[in-house]
Amino acid sequence: MRVLGVDPGFGRVGYGVLDRRGGGLSPVVYGLIQTDQSLTAPERLRQIHESVTRLMKEHSPDCLATERLIFAANRKTAFAVARGLGVVLLAGAEAGLPWTEYTPAEVKMTVTGSGSADKQQVQFMVTRLLGLAAPPKSADASDALAVAICHAHCERVRSL
Amino acid sequence: MRVLGVDPGFGRVGYGVLDRRGGGLSPVVYGLIQTDQSLTAPERLRQIHESVTRLMKEHSPDCLATERLIFAANRKTAFAVARGLGVVLLAGAEAGLPWTEYTPAEVKMTVTGSGSADKQQVQFMVTRLLGLAAPPKSADASDALAVAICHAHCERVRSL
Repeated sequence: MRVLGVDPGFGRVGYGVLDRRGGGLSPVVYGLIQTDQSLTAPERLRQIHESVTRLMKEHSPDCLATERLIFAANRKTAFAVARGLGVVLLAGAEAGLPWTEYTPAEVKMTVTGSGSADKQQVQFMVTRLLGLAAPPKSADASDALAVAICHAHCERVRSL
Repeated sequence: MRVLGVDPGFGRVGYGVLDRRGGGLSPVVYGLIQTDQSLTAPERLRQIHESVTRLMKEHSPDCLATERLIFAANRKTAFAVARGLGVVLLAGAEAGLPWTEYTPAEVKMTVTGSGSADKQQVQFMVTRLLGLAAPPKSADASDALAVAICHAHCERVRSL
Protein backbone atom coordinates (compact mmCIF):
# COMPACT_ATOMS: atom_id res chain seq x y z
CA MET A 1 0.00 0.00 0.00
CA ARG A 2 1.29 3.43 -0.93
CA VAL A 3 0.14 6.30 1.31
CA LEU A 4 0.25 10.04 0.62
CA GLY A 5 0.24 12.05 3.83
CA VAL A 6 -0.40 15.79 3.68
CA ASP A 7 0.11 18.41 6.36
CA PRO A 8 -2.42 21.07 5.31
CA GLY A 9 -1.37 24.69 4.87
CA PHE A 10 -1.65 27.73 2.66
CA GLY A 11 1.88 29.17 2.42
CA ARG A 12 3.51 25.80 3.15
CA VAL A 13 2.01 22.37 2.52
CA GLY A 14 4.02 19.36 3.68
CA TYR A 15 3.75 16.05 1.84
CA GLY A 16 5.14 12.58 2.31
CA VAL A 17 4.68 9.37 0.33
CA LEU A 18 5.60 5.98 1.80
CA ASP A 19 5.14 2.31 1.04
CA ARG A 20 4.00 -0.30 3.53
CA ARG A 21 4.79 -3.91 2.79
CA GLY A 22 3.61 -6.12 5.66
CA GLY A 23 4.85 -4.30 8.76
CA GLY A 24 7.73 -2.56 6.97
CA LEU A 25 7.65 1.08 5.95
CA SER A 26 9.83 2.73 3.33
CA PRO A 27 9.90 6.36 2.23
CA VAL A 28 9.20 7.20 -1.43
CA VAL A 29 9.32 11.00 -1.56
CA TYR A 30 8.66 13.88 0.83
CA GLY A 31 8.98 17.63 0.85
CA LEU A 32 7.24 20.96 0.89
CA ILE A 33 4.96 22.83 -1.52
CA GLN A 34 5.50 26.55 -1.03
CA THR A 35 3.12 29.08 -2.55
CA ASP A 36 4.18 32.44 -3.90
CA GLN A 37 3.29 35.26 -1.48
CA SER A 38 3.17 37.77 -4.34
CA LEU A 39 0.18 35.97 -5.88
CA THR A 40 -3.50 36.31 -4.95
CA ALA A 41 -5.10 33.76 -2.63
CA PRO A 42 -6.93 31.96 -5.50
CA GLU A 43 -3.66 31.72 -7.49
CA ARG A 44 -1.89 30.26 -4.45
CA LEU A 45 -4.67 27.70 -4.05
CA ARG A 46 -4.15 26.84 -7.69
CA GLN A 47 -0.43 26.27 -7.04
CA ILE A 48 -1.31 23.85 -4.22
CA HIS A 49 -3.90 22.02 -6.35
CA GLU A 50 -1.50 21.69 -9.32
CA SER A 51 1.40 20.52 -7.17
CA VAL A 52 -0.64 17.90 -5.32
CA THR A 53 -2.20 16.70 -8.60
CA ARG A 54 1.28 16.35 -10.13
CA LEU A 55 2.50 14.47 -7.04
CA MET A 56 -0.40 12.02 -7.33
CA LYS A 57 0.26 11.46 -11.04
CA GLU A 58 3.99 10.90 -10.50
CA HIS A 59 3.78 8.59 -7.48
CA SER A 60 0.32 6.93 -7.77
CA PRO A 61 -0.58 6.66 -4.07
CA ASP A 62 -3.45 4.31 -3.09
CA CYS A 63 -4.87 6.65 -0.47
CA LEU A 64 -4.67 10.10 1.07
CA ALA A 65 -4.31 10.86 4.78
CA THR A 66 -4.38 14.32 6.36
CA GLU A 67 -4.21 15.78 9.82
CA ARG A 68 -7.50 17.16 11.14
CA LEU A 69 -7.50 20.91 11.60
CA ILE A 70 -7.73 22.08 15.16
CA PHE A 71 -8.90 25.57 15.81
CA ALA A 72 -5.80 27.59 16.64
CA ALA A 73 -5.28 31.04 18.11
CA ASN A 74 -5.15 32.78 14.75
CA ARG A 75 -8.54 32.61 13.07
CA LYS A 76 -7.38 34.11 9.80
CA THR A 77 -4.67 31.45 9.44
CA ALA A 78 -7.12 28.68 10.33
CA PHE A 79 -9.46 29.65 7.48
CA ALA A 80 -6.58 29.97 5.01
CA VAL A 81 -5.32 26.50 5.99
CA ALA A 82 -8.85 25.07 5.65
CA ARG A 83 -9.17 26.58 2.15
CA GLY A 84 -5.81 24.98 1.31
CA LEU A 85 -7.04 21.64 2.60
CA GLY A 86 -10.12 22.01 0.39
CA VAL A 87 -8.08 21.96 -2.81
CA VAL A 88 -5.91 19.05 -1.55
CA LEU A 89 -9.07 16.99 -0.90
CA LEU A 90 -10.39 17.98 -4.33
CA ALA A 91 -7.18 16.69 -5.96
CA GLY A 92 -7.65 13.45 -4.01
CA ALA A 93 -11.25 13.07 -5.24
CA GLU A 94 -10.15 13.79 -8.83
CA ALA A 95 -7.52 11.03 -8.50
CA GLY A 96 -10.13 8.68 -6.96
CA LEU A 97 -8.21 8.24 -3.69
CA PRO A 98 -9.94 7.26 -0.46
CA TRP A 99 -9.30 9.82 2.27
CA THR A 100 -8.79 9.40 6.01
CA GLU A 101 -8.30 12.12 8.60
CA TYR A 102 -6.50 11.81 11.96
CA THR A 103 -6.33 14.20 14.88
CA PRO A 104 -2.87 15.55 15.81
CA ALA A 105 -3.06 13.49 19.05
CA GLU A 106 -3.79 10.29 17.09
CA VAL A 107 -0.81 10.94 14.83
CA LYS A 108 1.53 11.65 17.74
CA MET A 109 0.28 8.64 19.68
CA THR A 110 0.83 6.27 16.77
CA VAL A 111 4.26 7.60 15.83
CA THR A 112 5.78 8.32 19.25
CA GLY A 113 3.56 6.48 21.76
CA SER A 114 2.51 9.77 23.34
CA GLY A 115 -0.44 11.94 22.28
CA SER A 116 1.34 15.02 23.61
CA ALA A 117 4.74 14.52 21.95
CA ASP A 118 6.46 17.68 20.65
CA LYS A 119 7.59 18.38 17.06
CA GLN A 120 11.14 17.17 17.77
CA GLN A 121 9.98 13.81 19.12
CA VAL A 122 7.76 13.34 16.06
CA GLN A 123 10.67 14.24 13.77
CA PHE A 124 12.99 11.85 15.61
CA MET A 125 10.56 8.93 15.34
CA VAL A 126 9.72 9.64 11.68
CA THR A 127 13.44 9.59 10.86
CA ARG A 128 13.88 6.34 12.78
CA LEU A 129 10.77 4.50 11.59
CA LEU A 130 11.54 5.27 7.93
CA GLY A 131 15.30 4.72 8.26
CA LEU A 132 16.11 8.18 6.90
CA ALA A 133 19.76 9.22 6.85
CA ALA A 134 18.80 12.58 8.36
CA PRO A 135 15.59 14.18 9.69
CA PRO A 136 13.46 15.91 7.03
CA LYS A 137 14.58 19.55 6.77
CA SER A 138 11.03 20.79 6.97
CA ALA A 139 8.83 20.16 10.01
CA ASP A 140 5.82 20.24 7.63
CA ALA A 141 7.27 17.37 5.58
CA SER A 142 7.98 15.49 8.81
CA ASP A 143 4.37 16.02 9.94
CA ALA A 144 3.12 14.80 6.57
CA LEU A 145 5.22 11.63 6.86
CA ALA A 146 3.92 11.20 10.43
CA VAL A 147 0.28 11.21 9.28
CA ALA A 148 1.19 8.78 6.47
CA ILE A 149 2.84 6.47 9.04
CA CYS A 150 -0.23 6.79 11.28
CA HIS A 151 -2.51 5.77 8.42
CA ALA A 152 -0.26 2.87 7.35
CA HIS A 153 -0.26 1.52 10.91
CA CYS A 154 -4.01 1.98 11.41
CA GLU A 155 -4.81 0.27 8.08
CA ARG A 156 -2.55 -2.63 9.04
CA VAL A 157 -4.33 -3.04 12.39
CA ARG A 158 -7.72 -2.86 10.66
CA SER A 159 -6.69 -5.60 8.21
CA LEU A 160 -5.40 -8.02 10.86
CA MET B 1 -19.45 44.19 -16.08
CA ARG B 2 -20.75 40.74 -15.17
CA VAL B 3 -20.28 39.70 -11.53
CA LEU B 4 -20.49 36.22 -10.02
CA GLY B 5 -21.28 36.36 -6.32
CA VAL B 6 -20.89 33.24 -4.20
CA ASP B 7 -22.15 32.55 -0.69
CA PRO B 8 -19.63 29.93 0.50
CA GLY B 9 -20.80 26.64 1.94
CA PHE B 10 -20.27 22.89 1.95
CA GLY B 11 -23.76 21.35 1.82
CA ARG B 12 -25.28 24.42 0.16
CA VAL B 13 -23.44 27.01 -1.95
CA GLY B 14 -25.45 30.01 -3.14
CA TYR B 15 -24.57 31.70 -6.43
CA GLY B 16 -25.78 34.76 -8.29
CA VAL B 17 -24.70 36.32 -11.58
CA LEU B 18 -25.69 39.87 -12.50
CA ASP B 19 -24.83 42.51 -15.07
CA ARG B 20 -24.07 46.12 -14.31
CA ARG B 21 -24.46 48.66 -17.11
CA GLY B 22 -23.77 52.14 -15.78
CA GLY B 23 -25.75 52.30 -12.56
CA GLY B 24 -28.29 49.66 -13.61
CA LEU B 25 -28.24 46.10 -12.37
CA SER B 26 -29.92 43.14 -14.00
CA PRO B 27 -29.99 39.51 -12.87
CA VAL B 28 -28.59 36.81 -15.16
CA VAL B 29 -28.91 33.61 -13.15
CA TYR B 30 -29.00 32.61 -9.49
CA GLY B 31 -29.54 29.49 -7.44
CA LEU B 32 -28.10 26.89 -5.16
CA ILE B 33 -25.49 24.18 -5.54
CA GLN B 34 -26.36 21.33 -3.19
CA THR B 35 -23.89 18.56 -2.47
CA ASP B 36 -24.86 14.96 -1.89
CA GLN B 37 -24.71 14.04 1.82
CA SER B 38 -24.15 10.38 0.98
CA LEU B 39 -20.79 11.20 -0.64
CA THR B 40 -17.41 11.69 1.08
CA ALA B 41 -16.18 15.20 1.84
CA PRO B 42 -13.66 15.17 -1.07
CA GLU B 43 -16.40 14.05 -3.50
CA ARG B 44 -18.68 16.82 -2.25
CA LEU B 45 -15.89 19.37 -2.79
CA ARG B 46 -15.57 17.98 -6.28
CA GLN B 47 -19.29 18.59 -6.88
CA ILE B 48 -18.87 22.21 -5.80
CA HIS B 49 -15.77 22.70 -7.99
CA GLU B 50 -17.44 21.16 -11.04
CA SER B 51 -20.66 23.13 -10.60
CA VAL B 52 -18.87 26.46 -10.16
CA THR B 53 -16.59 25.73 -13.12
CA ARG B 54 -19.64 24.94 -15.29
CA LEU B 55 -21.34 28.13 -14.13
CA MET B 56 -18.29 30.19 -15.12
CA LYS B 57 -18.12 28.53 -18.54
CA GLU B 58 -21.82 29.05 -19.23
CA HIS B 59 -22.11 32.64 -18.06
CA SER B 60 -18.57 34.08 -18.49
CA PRO B 61 -18.46 36.44 -15.49
CA ASP B 62 -15.71 39.09 -15.40
CA CYS B 63 -15.04 38.75 -11.70
CA LEU B 64 -15.79 36.75 -8.57
CA ALA B 65 -16.98 38.19 -5.25
CA THR B 66 -17.48 36.22 -2.04
CA GLU B 67 -18.51 36.94 1.51
CA ARG B 68 -15.67 36.77 4.04
CA LEU B 69 -16.03 33.93 6.52
CA ILE B 70 -16.63 34.98 10.07
CA PHE B 71 -15.84 32.55 12.80
CA ALA B 72 -19.17 31.16 13.95
CA ALA B 73 -20.24 29.12 16.92
CA ASN B 74 -19.78 25.78 15.17
CA ARG B 75 -16.09 25.22 14.47
CA LYS B 76 -16.64 22.05 12.48
CA THR B 77 -19.00 23.84 10.11
CA ALA B 78 -16.63 26.78 9.78
CA PHE B 79 -13.80 24.53 8.55
CA ALA B 80 -16.11 22.69 6.15
CA VAL B 81 -17.32 26.01 4.72
CA ALA B 82 -13.71 27.25 4.39
CA ARG B 83 -12.75 24.07 2.50
CA GLY B 84 -15.72 24.68 0.21
CA LEU B 85 -14.59 28.24 -0.36
CA GLY B 86 -11.13 26.93 -1.27
CA VAL B 87 -12.45 25.02 -4.28
CA VAL B 88 -14.62 27.97 -5.37
CA LEU B 89 -11.56 30.25 -5.34
CA LEU B 90 -9.61 27.60 -7.23
CA ALA B 91 -12.30 27.53 -9.95
CA GLY B 92 -12.02 31.33 -10.11
CA ALA B 93 -8.24 31.20 -10.55
CA GLU B 94 -8.59 28.52 -13.25
CA ALA B 95 -11.03 30.81 -15.10
CA GLY B 96 -8.66 33.77 -14.63
CA LEU B 97 -11.20 35.84 -12.66
CA PRO B 98 -10.14 38.58 -10.25
CA TRP B 99 -11.53 37.95 -6.77
CA THR B 100 -12.79 40.37 -4.13
CA GLU B 101 -14.00 39.56 -0.65
CA TYR B 102 -16.46 41.58 1.49
CA THR B 103 -17.42 41.21 5.13
CA PRO B 104 -21.07 40.40 5.89
CA ALA B 105 -21.43 43.92 7.37
CA GLU B 106 -20.08 45.52 4.15
CA VAL B 107 -22.55 43.51 2.07
CA LYS B 108 -25.50 44.40 4.30
CA MET B 109 -24.50 48.06 4.44
CA THR B 110 -24.26 48.34 0.65
CA VAL B 111 -27.47 46.50 -0.07
CA THR B 112 -29.74 47.72 2.74
CA GLY B 113 -27.98 50.78 4.19
CA SER B 114 -27.53 49.02 7.53
CA GLY B 115 -24.57 46.81 8.51
CA SER B 116 -26.78 44.91 10.94
CA ALA B 117 -29.71 44.17 8.59
CA ASP B 118 -31.31 40.74 8.95
CA LYS B 119 -31.71 38.08 6.25
CA GLN B 120 -35.24 39.22 5.37
CA GLN B 121 -34.17 42.84 4.82
CA VAL B 122 -31.34 41.66 2.57
CA GLN B 123 -33.73 39.43 0.63
CA PHE B 124 -36.24 42.28 0.27
CA MET B 125 -33.61 44.71 -1.07
CA VAL B 126 -32.05 42.13 -3.40
CA THR B 127 -35.50 41.47 -4.89
CA ARG B 128 -36.14 45.19 -5.27
CA LEU B 129 -32.71 46.24 -6.58
CA LEU B 130 -32.73 43.50 -9.23
CA GLY B 131 -36.43 43.90 -10.09
CA LEU B 132 -37.14 40.23 -9.43
CA ALA B 133 -40.76 39.09 -9.68
CA ALA B 134 -40.39 37.24 -6.35
CA PRO B 135 -37.66 36.88 -3.71
CA PRO B 136 -35.13 34.09 -4.42
CA LYS B 137 -36.40 30.88 -2.85
CA SER B 138 -33.08 30.18 -1.22
CA ALA B 139 -31.53 32.57 1.35
CA ASP B 140 -28.11 31.38 0.12
CA ALA B 141 -28.89 32.49 -3.44
CA SER B 142 -30.14 35.81 -2.06
CA ASP B 143 -26.88 36.24 -0.08
CA ALA B 144 -24.87 35.43 -3.21
CA LEU B 145 -26.78 38.07 -5.19
CA ALA B 146 -26.23 40.52 -2.30
CA VAL B 147 -22.44 40.11 -2.44
CA ALA B 148 -22.56 40.48 -6.25
CA ILE B 149 -24.57 43.72 -5.85
CA CYS B 150 -22.08 44.92 -3.21
CA HIS B 151 -19.17 44.31 -5.59
CA ALA B 152 -20.94 45.93 -8.55
CA HIS B 153 -21.61 49.06 -6.48
CA CYS B 154 -18.10 49.22 -5.02
CA GLU B 155 -16.50 48.80 -8.45
CA ARG B 156 -18.70 51.59 -9.80
CA VAL B 157 -17.66 53.92 -6.98
CA ARG B 158 -13.99 53.01 -7.52
CA SER B 159 -14.30 53.82 -11.24
CA LEU B 160 -15.95 57.25 -10.78
